[in-house]
Amino acid sequence: TRRGVPEGILAAGKSPSAVATLTQAALETTGHALVTRVSEADVTAVTDEVADGVTVAHDERGRTLVARCRGDERPTVDAEVTIVTGGTADAAVAAEAETVLSVMGVDTTRVDDVGVAHLGRVLDETEELRAADVLVVAAGREGALPTVVAGLVDTPVIGVPVSSGYGHGGDGDAALAGLLQSCTVLSVVNIDAGFVAGAQAGLVARAVSDARHGST
Amino acid sequence: TRRGVPEGILAAGKSPSAVATLTQAALETTGHALVTRVSEADVTAVTDEVADGVTVAHDERGRTLVARCRGDERPTVDAEVTIVTGGTADAAVAAEAETVLSVMGVDTTRVDDVGVAHLGRVLDETEELRAADVLVVAAGREGALPTVVAGLVDTPVIGVPVSSGYGHGGDGDAALAGLLQSCTVLSVVNIDAGFVAGAQAGLVARAVSDARHGST
Amino acid sequence: TRRGVPEGILAAGKSPSAVATLTQAALETTGHALVTRVSEADVTAVTDEVADGVTVAHDERGRTLVARCRGDERPTVDAEVTIVTGGTADAAVAAEAETVLSVMGVDTTRVDDVGVAHLGRVLDETEELRAADVLVVAAGREGALPTVVAGLVDTPVIGVPVSSGYGHGGDGDAALAGLLQSCTVLSVVNIDAGFVAGAQAGLVARAVSDARHGST
Amino acid sequence: TRRGVPEGILAAGKSPSAVATLTQAALETTGHALVTRVSEADVTAVTDEVADGVTVAHDERGRTLVARCRGDERPTVDAEVTIVTGGTADAAVAAEAETVLSVMGVDTTRVDDVGVAHLGRVLDETEELRAADVLVVAAGREGALPTVVAGLVDTPVIGVPVSSGYGHGGDGDAALAGLLQSCTVLSVVNIDAGFVAGAQAGLVARAVSDARHGST
Amino acid sequence: TRRGVPEGILAAGKSPSAVATLTQAALETTGHALVTRVSEADVTAVTDEVADGVTVAHDERGRTLVARCRGDERPTVDAEVTIVTGGTADAAVAAEAETVLSVMGVDTTRVDDVGVAHLGRVLDETEELRAADVLVVAAGREGALPTVVAGLVDTPVIGVPVSSGYGHGGDGDAALAGLLQSCTVLSVVNIDAGFVAGAQAGLVARAVSDARHGST
Amino acid sequence: TRRGVPEGILAAGKSPSAVATLTQAALETTGHALVTRVSEADVTAVTDEVADGVTVAHDERGRTLVARCRGDERPTVDAEVTIVTGGTADAAVAAEAETVLSVMGVDTTRVDDVGVAHLGRVLDETEELRAADVLVVAAGREGALPTVVAGLVDTPVIGVPVSSGYGHGGDGDAALAGLLQSCTVLSVVNIDAGFVAGAQAGLVARAVSDARHGST
Amino acid sequence: TRRGVPEGILAAGKSPSAVATLTQAALETTGHALVTRVSEADVTAVTDEVADGVTVAHDERGRTLVARCRGDERPTVDAEVTIVTGGTADAAVAAEAETVLSVMGVDTTRVDDVGVAHLGRVLDETEELRAADVLVVAAGREGALPTVVAGLVDTPVIGVPVSSGYGHGGDGDAALAGLLQSCTVLSVVNIDAGFVAGAQAGLVARAVSDARHGST
Amino acid sequence: TRRGVPEGILAAGKSPSAVATLTQAALETTGHALVTRVSEADVTAVTDEVADGVTVAHDERGRTLVARCRGDERPTVDAEVTIVTGGTADAAVAAEAETVLSVMGVDTTRVDDVGVAHLGRVLDETEELRAADVLVVAAGREGALPTVVAGLVDTPVIGVPVSSGYGHGGDGDAALAGLLQSCTVLSVVNIDAGFVAGAQAGLVARAVSDARHGST
Ligand SMILES: Nc1ncnc2c1ncn2[C@@H]1O[C@H](COP(=O)(O)O)[C@@H](O)[C@H]1O
Ligand SMILES: Nc1ncnc2c1ncn2[C@@H]1O[C@H](COP(=O)(O)O)[C@@H](O)[C@H]1O
Ligand SMILES: Nc1ncnc2c1ncn2[C@@H]1O[C@H](COP(=O)(O)O)[C@@H](O)[C@H]1O
Ligand SMILES: Nc1ncnc2c1ncn2[C@@H]1O[C@H](COP(=O)(O)O)[C@@H](O)[C@H]1O
Ligand SMILES: [Mg+2]
Ligand SMILES: [Mg+2]
Ligand SMILES: [Mg+2]
Ligand SMILES: [Mg+2]
Ligand SMILES: [Mg+2]
Ligand SMILES: [Mg+2]
Ligand SMILES: [Mg+2]
Ligand SMILES: [Mg+2]
Repeated sequence: TRRGVPEGILAAGKSPSAVATLTQAALETTGHALVTRVSEADVTAVTDEVADGVTVAHDERGRTLVARCRGDERPTVDAEVTIVTGGTADAAVAAEAETVLSVMGVDTTRVDDVGVAHLGRVLDETEELRAADVLVVAAGREGALPTVVAGLVDTPVIGVPVSSGYGHGGDGDAALAGLLQSCTVLSVVNIDAGFVAGAQAGLVARAVSDARHGST
Repeated sequence: TRRGVPEGILAAGKSPSAVATLTQAALETTGHALVTRVSEADVTAVTDEVADGVTVAHDERGRTLVARCRGDERPTVDAEVTIVTGGTADAAVAAEAETVLSVMGVDTTRVDDVGVAHLGRVLDETEELRAADVLVVAAGREGALPTVVAGLVDTPVIGVPVSSGYGHGGDGDAALAGLLQSCTVLSVVNIDAGFVAGAQAGLVARAVSDARHGST
Repeated sequence: TRRGVPEGILAAGKSPSAVATLTQAALETTGHALVTRVSEADVTAVTDEVADGVTVAHDERGRTLVARCRGDERPTVDAEVTIVTGGTADAAVAAEAETVLSVMGVDTTRVDDVGVAHLGRVLDETEELRAADVLVVAAGREGALPTVVAGLVDTPVIGVPVSSGYGHGGDGDAALAGLLQSCTVLSVVNIDAGFVAGAQAGLVARAVSDARHGST
Repeated sequence: TRRGVPEGILAAGKSPSAVATLTQAALETTGHALVTRVSEADVTAVTDEVADGVTVAHDERGRTLVARCRGDERPTVDAEVTIVTGGTADAAVAAEAETVLSVMGVDTTRVDDVGVAHLGRVLDETEELRAADVLVVAAGREGALPTVVAGLVDTPVIGVPVSSGYGHGGDGDAALAGLLQSCTVLSVVNIDAGFVAGAQAGLVARAVSDARHGST
Repeated sequence: TRRGVPEGILAAGKSPSAVATLTQAALETTGHALVTRVSEADVTAVTDEVADGVTVAHDERGRTLVARCRGDERPTVDAEVTIVTGGTADAAVAAEAETVLSVMGVDTTRVDDVGVAHLGRVLDETEELRAADVLVVAAGREGALPTVVAGLVDTPVIGVPVSSGYGHGGDGDAALAGLLQSCTVLSVVNIDAGFVAGAQAGLVARAVSDARHGST
Repeated sequence: TRRGVPEGILAAGKSPSAVATLTQAALETTGHALVTRVSEADVTAVTDEVADGVTVAHDERGRTLVARCRGDERPTVDAEVTIVTGGTADAAVAAEAETVLSVMGVDTTRVDDVGVAHLGRVLDETEELRAADVLVVAAGREGALPTVVAGLVDTPVIGVPVSSGYGHGGDGDAALAGLLQSCTVLSVVNIDAGFVAGAQAGLVARAVSDARHGST
Repeated sequence: TRRGVPEGILAAGKSPSAVATLTQAALETTGHALVTRVSEADVTAVTDEVADGVTVAHDERGRTLVARCRGDERPTVDAEVTIVTGGTADAAVAAEAETVLSVMGVDTTRVDDVGVAHLGRVLDETEELRAADVLVVAAGREGALPTVVAGLVDTPVIGVPVSSGYGHGGDGDAALAGLLQSCTVLSVVNIDAGFVAGAQAGLVARAVSDARHGST
Repeated sequence: TRRGVPEGILAAGKSPSAVATLTQAALETTGHALVTRVSEADVTAVTDEVADGVTVAHDERGRTLVARCRGDERPTVDAEVTIVTGGTADAAVAAEAETVLSVMGVDTTRVDDVGVAHLGRVLDETEELRAADVLVVAAGREGALPTVVAGLVDTPVIGVPVSSGYGHGGDGDAALAGLLQSCTVLSVVNIDAGFVAGAQAGLVARAVSDARHGST
């Protein structure tokens, strides 16, 4: 694809055989395929479908699958994305972002368990957070973490609301609204959209990498 | 009134003459009256209506009016409430809370301009925040401040969402949802409900004061 | 934890093994653990994981689990919280609140089956309600009970909306909106958030207890 | 009109001259006209338009206007409707209901200032409430009053949500949702729809009156 | 119960054993019990629990159960309620209303399959509709049927929105909003609330019956 | 423009001078201009701006303005659109639709004051309704009129929700949801979008006209 | 049926035996039946119920069933509808539209996989799109495709929002709102309402066909 | 400020004198001030307040004001941001973004009037769009433009929903939901938040500029 964003196949709402067919088509066109929100049945269907020599990597946490033809190579991007989470409820979203960044050739670092109820833990990570070229920050519950993080750094921050709560706003709507109202500067993707957050971070990382290497 | 909560008269949506009549009635029954969301016309109507010897105090910021008959005395509560704001947008709500607490006989302290985008300012106030018996924290925009404050203290925190934003959730709905989803323990009142937050804080303060003086 | 609020582990949305790991970690750090919204599988996983000498108490109604190391002692709080419900639909939320208060060392009383459709039953309990230091009132359907109760007492009231209805507003949104619009003074927590209501009541109770014993 | 419900002309959103024309047309067809939500300009326009001998009665509170040709007679209904309000914020809605009932020939009684925060006042009116054939109960804020009233009587209750609050649900949505979730039996009309509540009460009153007089 | 409204037990969200206990309690107090939204398991639990001589009638369509002690007699109400539906999607709601009316002693008539897309069918039933003392009209999809019916009759109409659609508003919200906006006079109950519609119709029917027999 | 749909200039939210500039530009490119939602100031600004020989027609009801260069000719479409309204509240929306159809060269007929509360009036117009090639039906309040009309004809019906109500759903949302849930077949445009309804009806009319004349 | 629109039976929410009964009734009245949203059990029940000589065609993708008596003939419509989709997520909705058009006797063409993220693919189909008499365009995710397509053609476009996303607006609400806000002219049906889109397109096609053959 | 994001003063909801005071404070601390959503009165108050030698630049379109002390210098960023709009309704939002970028030292290019209804205009600008380092794309009505643009480029795209519509979703909610559901990769800011979009684009531009010059 033009943008270097792997065109993810969203498995949710498709039959395993449809997923397998689309994966095979992507492999033939681009040499690799990224599938998100896979079920066990999708993984089996893809594994059965693909040709010999295709490797299939399945990440259970993030519910992603990456298939790659022998000889297909990941690009190399010289810029770093750090993914920040407040707790285990954000793990699946963070993993989805990590996978797409990995396919785009971007190295990622993780800063986990830095919920805003314990400011000390966030503050301790300030140097780590400042070292990144771009930050993806997952935002469960009230979605305050990206605001707090953005207040500590010079780096572009992309916030991802996470649907980890219950009651009023618990499906991610509180976090989404909070991110949109943030009193620091950041941009936002949809609820649970780890794929989009990762890909957007990857586009920024690649722009930085290209600038570093004088290619634009 | 039974609860020691002054029965506030909500001027919004009432004519100045209706407000004056209700104020006069409260003065006759209880010796004082608290009116919220007053217009200039309400203040004039009340001032014209009340008997000689009644003092009328009008707070422009908080849009409150307190009328008091000569000789009517505020109760004395031996407990302290601290009111915390992130910026000038929260000033009116904080002032409304202050007025009701003053009528209930509770001393208040203010900690202002401690928005979450600048954690340093919040952290610098940690001792001040811990010194209070109850905290009222105003929450504009994404509503993260009460969560951050509650993470620093042992004290009950009452959050008030403020309608200071624009766009999606800017009418206070983002802040309200954020407070309800808070990952620290706090309780909440309605958007811009400085009166309710102040009065609830006053009820807790009085319970503490009574306990200090052995009266319950 | 600093606030004496047990840091509850929300089991919903986590695998049993993740729940067991987090419980074990809490036991090692604090000597006890409180888990909410547990499934049978969570209880089994925790029971299997924890060391000998750890007691595991499971409350089916409230779907809570409390694990405690031998020798770990509950604090003692000298203040009383009364939990009020309108009907059996509120039982799970009330039980969740009770558990967190018990872990915080606060004694609780129950006043049940006092729905607003039968005012006599509420009025009969007036003395009982006035005896508490703090009230937690569950609010199913239209959420009128906390308003009615707060009108009878001098005590701080914390309302918890309950998702026990059907149709428009039946997921707890009618009750939440009703509590926020209450014409008596009270503060609110999220829909079905028995844990938060209990913990906030516990913070107030402890402030009262400390005042009684001169410790602040 | 067939149902004996005066076909109200809703002035809001129409020009004064359009209102006058529609009023004149109603006078010609039925001998009388009921206009709701009138402005001063509407009243002037109607007064200027109507023929000699037409009386024009304008109720400022309820913003209604009733025009009646000389000789046109109100029907007589032998049943009583009581209109109940919690406070002055409900006055306009109650007045609109009263006007339509008056045009339908139904006598009305008022029970005012019986907010749920002061149960005593409601209970004191129990006999008065039980004396009615139908009750219209206005419901501002959290909308608890109709539920409480319905719990005290054998009579059909029609609840009208009133848009007298502010913040979340303050435009009448909290009261509407509360009425729909009521745990006693009642039926509901739209927010601020005093006209509809009055007319529906009038239809029930007429059915009762007809039964009393053996006419159906 | 005072109002002659059988205090329905809402089985949804309660365990079968809780339902059986509440049913038994109602039988002991009042001689009969009405349970709504029952599952098969609820019916079995109740049947097992109740004493000999108690009859248990289960309506599958309306998901209701009526238990009655030997010798307990239904009241007799001399007034008729007609229940109107547009199609089979409204059958369960209509059946729930029928059951509560039957327990209240009110005779009911059914007018079915008169959807607004086929005006002829509605118009053909005009005489039948006019013969009732009160009408309960179920309103699926866009909720137009009660408006059309109310335009044809002199009778009080109670509309019940039904959650039979899909897409935007399909959960009953379109029908509820439509009923509240109706341009004829009617009152409304919550989505799928056949119980409430039936009980409110029953209260009106009883008022008419009492008037017929001079008892009030 | 390609589609023969006049590219309307939406004046709302633009300054009068911006509106005049855009109108002038449209005149130069296409020989005519259609402006919707104009204020008096917009009309003055356009009249001042346009060259001699340009006629400016302003419709106050529909708040539209049509400017046309000397010699510019309307197309001729041989198909008829009938616009149906329930009452005067729908007049502005109907007028906006009429204007765009007139600019497209389509003749329109009006059927007014046929609200669903008075079925007789609708039924009386059945022949008139069947004579059209396409119907635009405005839908205020509960939005039932298009459903009733579509049930009487063989013709494509386009429904326009109108924001003429108050209370819950009164801003057009009840009518929009009702139209989307309609139990007869029709398609819908946005609330108050007379322009879009008229233009879509015009596209259908032109297709019919072309077919009549063998041009496609 | 009068309009030549087959009166679809919506199987969702009905028991298989109810579906079979309604199908049999339609066969007896009209010679054919169209059932939408069928389950496997519905298909079996219908197949078992219908008389010999009735053919039953089941489309798995679109979840439709068409039953037809021997000798019953489809009408013939001389106009073409093209159905456009952006991806496989739109397939079920497109198939539902296709089935109803087939029953109405209208030939359909498909243009698939022309998502807006790849403008080239849409532009390549411009001639194909212009060849149709009416277009049905499915709109998943942000619902931009119908707007883009309508910008390329002279043809009436009917947009169908599809519920294929996740997160905020993912249930089809984003697509619906987008279609209603479209800056080109089009009309809309409810989310996932392939049946309605197809039937409305069929009504337009028949009008065109009739015009072609001079029949109106 | 740390991030090089000028800390904008949001004038909306503040009095002119408060705005002037905050501006003066910012000038003293940082040598310059950026105020958004200014009224004429704000501009006058600031101009009167500031010291001699302070330049005040007011942009009427974007409603921004930039004050700068003599000698204060803008930073220089070696990266380009292109701002894209579909029509004049997006002009104010684009201007707000331009101002903040200008204060951050980033050069901006404008690509205007490329609405999605006219794909040709967008496609003609493809080279211009590809030349930017970051794109800010304003999205009125259905919000399709950023999706279409992102499909044409390799560059990070930041979408800003604009509140330029009317009816359902017209306050920017349709555009916001559309951007969040976009089927190409982009990130989003709140409705009308030109300031945030510009500042986030500025952070990315600076990261690219720093990379170009080897500074990180
Ligand atoms: N988890 C995801 N969230 C959002 N977009 C995704 C996701 N996975 C894939 N996509 C995008 O969605 C589109 C695939 O949609 P589809 O054609 O339905 O498979 C592609 O443009 C992907 O880039
Ligand atoms: N289907 C129903 N819809 C609405 N209210 C009901 C229903 N069934 C029973 N009720 C009422 O709900 C209350 C019982 O609630 P509960 O105490 O939860 O069983 C009683 O006041 C009943 O009159
Ligand atoms: N009243 C209206 N409702 C909906 N769309 C309109 C209206 N008037 C003009 N338009 C359309 O809106 C677009 C003009 O938008 P703008 O560029 O903001 O003037 C054109 O595509 C018109 O066809
Ligand atoms: N138009 C705007 N939109 C969003 N945020 C803004 C805007 N203008 C200023 N801000 C930010 O809002 C905060 C200022 O809020 P306040 O303290 O209320 O003046 C600062 O963090 C600014 O960076
Ligand atoms: Mg910052
Ligand atoms: Mg804490
Ligand atoms: Mg009280
Ligand atoms: Mg009762
Ligand atoms: Mg009528
Ligand atoms: Mg039809
Ligand atoms: Mg076009
Ligand atoms: Mg792309």
